[in-house]
Amino acid sequence: MTILAYGASAADQPLSRMSITRRAPGPHDVQIQIVYCGICHSDLHQVRSEWAGTLYPCVPGHEIVGRIAAVGDHVGNHKVGDLVGVGCIVDSCQHCAECDEGLENYCDGMICTYNAPTADVPGHTLGGYSQQIVVHERYVLKITHPEEQLAAVAPLLCAGITTWSPLRHWGAGPGKKVGIVGIGGLGHMGVKLAHAMGAHVVAFTTSDSKRADAHALGADEVVISRNPDEMAAHAKSFDFILNTVAAPHDLDAFLSLLKRDGTMALVGAPATPHPSPNVFSLILRRRSLAGSMIGGIPETQEMLDFCAEHGITSDIEMIRADEIEAAYARMLKGDVKYRFVMDIATMAA
Amino acid sequence: MTILAYGASAADQPLSRMSITRRAPGPHDVQIQIVYCGICHSDLHQVRSEWAGTLYPCVPGHEIVGRIAAVGDHVGNHKVGDLVGVGCIVDSCQHCAECDEGLENYCDGMICTYNAPTADVPGHTLGGYSQQIVVHERYVLKITHPEEQLAAVAPLLCAGITTWSPLRHWGAGPGKKVGIVGIGGLGHMGVKLAHAMGAHVVAFTTSDSKRADAHALGADEVVISRNPDEMAAHAKSFDFILNTVAAPHDLDAFLSLLKRDGTMALVGAPATPHPSPNVFSLILRRRSLAGSMIGGIPETQEMLDFCAEHGITSDIEMIRADEIEAAYARMLKGDVKYRFVMDIATMAA
Repeated sequence: MTILAYGASAADQPLSRMSITRRAPGPHDVQIQIVYCGICHSDLHQVRSEWAGTLYPCVPGHEIVGRIAAVGDHVGNHKVGDLVGVGCIVDSCQHCAECDEGLENYCDGMICTYNAPTADVPGHTLGGYSQQIVVHERYVLKITHPEEQLAAVAPLLCAGITTWSPLRHWGAGPGKKVGIVGIGGLGHMGVKLAHAMGAHVVAFTTSDSKRADAHALGADEVVISRNPDEMAAHAKSFDFILNTVAAPHDLDAFLSLLKRDGTMALVGAPATPHPSPNVFSLILRRRSLAGSMIGGIPETQEMLDFCAEHGITSDIEMIRADEIEAAYARMLKGDVKYRFVMDIATMAA
Repeated sequence: MTILAYGASAADQPLSRMSITRRAPGPHDVQIQIVYCGICHSDLHQVRSEWAGTLYPCVPGHEIVGRIAAVGDHVGNHKVGDLVGVGCIVDSCQHCAECDEGLENYCDGMICTYNAPTADVPGHTLGGYSQQIVVHERYVLKITHPEEQLAAVAPLLCAGITTWSPLRHWGAGPGKKVGIVGIGGLGHMGVKLAHAMGAHVVAFTTSDSKRADAHALGADEVVISRNPDEMAAHAKSFDFILNTVAAPHDLDAFLSLLKRDGTMALVGAPATPHPSPNVFSLILRRRSLAGSMIGGIPETQEMLDFCAEHGITSDIEMIRADEIEAAYARMLKGDVKYRFVMDIATMAA
């Protein structure tokens, strides 16, 4: 099947409309008519070859929501017409310890939604800036939000699960003081989710202009991290800090805010390293500096169900497909509250 | 009471014999006739003012073993003649959450055995290179090893507990694969303890000459960390790595050996930072880089009891008090298997 997509033919080329093919659904496949796709920083890094190994043509997009158009003969859990989502993962080995535990995100054989090897033409996966996608049923998530919220659900598939997974893993909830560093696409979801989990949430931002917004998102307190006095007032008090900032910065300033046995988890990966953290920041209170990458399929479904139940979506700004380059430019300046979502219907216009 | 000690009067002076005073035992104090004191790297750093804030005269020593000479009226748990030890901690606030949990090592008011504020003359604590010490009963540990092992017990009070605490905290035991990085004063205790706990122990050393020794200490496997092939054979396989190396080195080489959810805990603090660890080393398998500092009093007693039961002591080389400068020089070259212990009786000779 040939469909329309938005992608780049080379690292120095802008994204433009192109035709791609999708495989016919196999017995365990779900064919999805994509309605919206969220725009993630990773999309931009990958399509511009700022990370190693981009394969062209490159069609980014891993915050996919839509409606099932067809299912294979052996698909038991999904049916035509269902609202569904696809995130960063479209395949994995399905038999390692990680897959057995539903942590496909840590499987050595994880296949990303774009730029990963596949038997399909052209030999690497093509993402959600496209009209349709065909995905093994295991990696298809059910969406129970009201249909009118569908566009704002899309970013949950990456920004949502990337913050949900570490918040759950490190026990965010009632009685816990949780910090969220950086109020962007990931951070704004971190604040909403940690608040809904019942934690006392402190948002950290470098921008005084985001103070009111952070409170509106659900932060109990907001700290301007450039202000040493504000930072010092929270010394040794956090159970957990989720750090979403992908630019190199002083990790010690945040590690020092953790209480004994506290953990700061990084979910952003800067292009150049952070300054090396001071070993005493870790030793003096048995603190941990950890990392977390997206989340597994069962926990992604759990997150979507939780968000539907709690009325949680992403704050989004809708764009047409042909506005993608302008959206990237604004995203690079942090000029979006808080996630762009592409209306896939505009692709055929 | 005036006693003999070995200490330095200034940063640029060698250690020499001097007279110091000890307070008369208060109602909760224990007065100890010191028999042996282990020699820790920290002693050298402190007495030479290589760390900030050394107060003079400086008498180092926090691996203290001896016999009780007197007890205060309200001491209930210790009696004259008992074999006891004192480690790195001689006081703490006794009412914070950390003290309540027996983790006095993380109390903000922890008073170190030397160079910490005290009401006693000269206003800062003086350590175990001395004939006697007077310590609050809470910080006095019982020793149940046979008396002839007393000298080899001394290093358990710092090197032992510093490795025991993280090994226990992060669950070293049967079915777990545990790495010990660096086979020195701390590392050789780490290998012995992890082995006795029932873990599968892999010792990492840069020195091929330590291979046989590491096996003799209890390592199931020994890896020469300079050899990339040997390292690669252990990729993604460790539950826990205890890193005892205080010199700056490539942490990623060891982080990459952790399986999902594995932790590497640092117990050494280099004078200059480690190269900044790669964020992907943490993110890709939800790994943690942590720190740990000595251990609390109850777990120190637990460690001593465990060691007595399992016949575990430190491998030591005995020195006379007037050999301390020569011992420091050899320690700096790593030329000791694996801990120097000062025979305090030689101080009066």
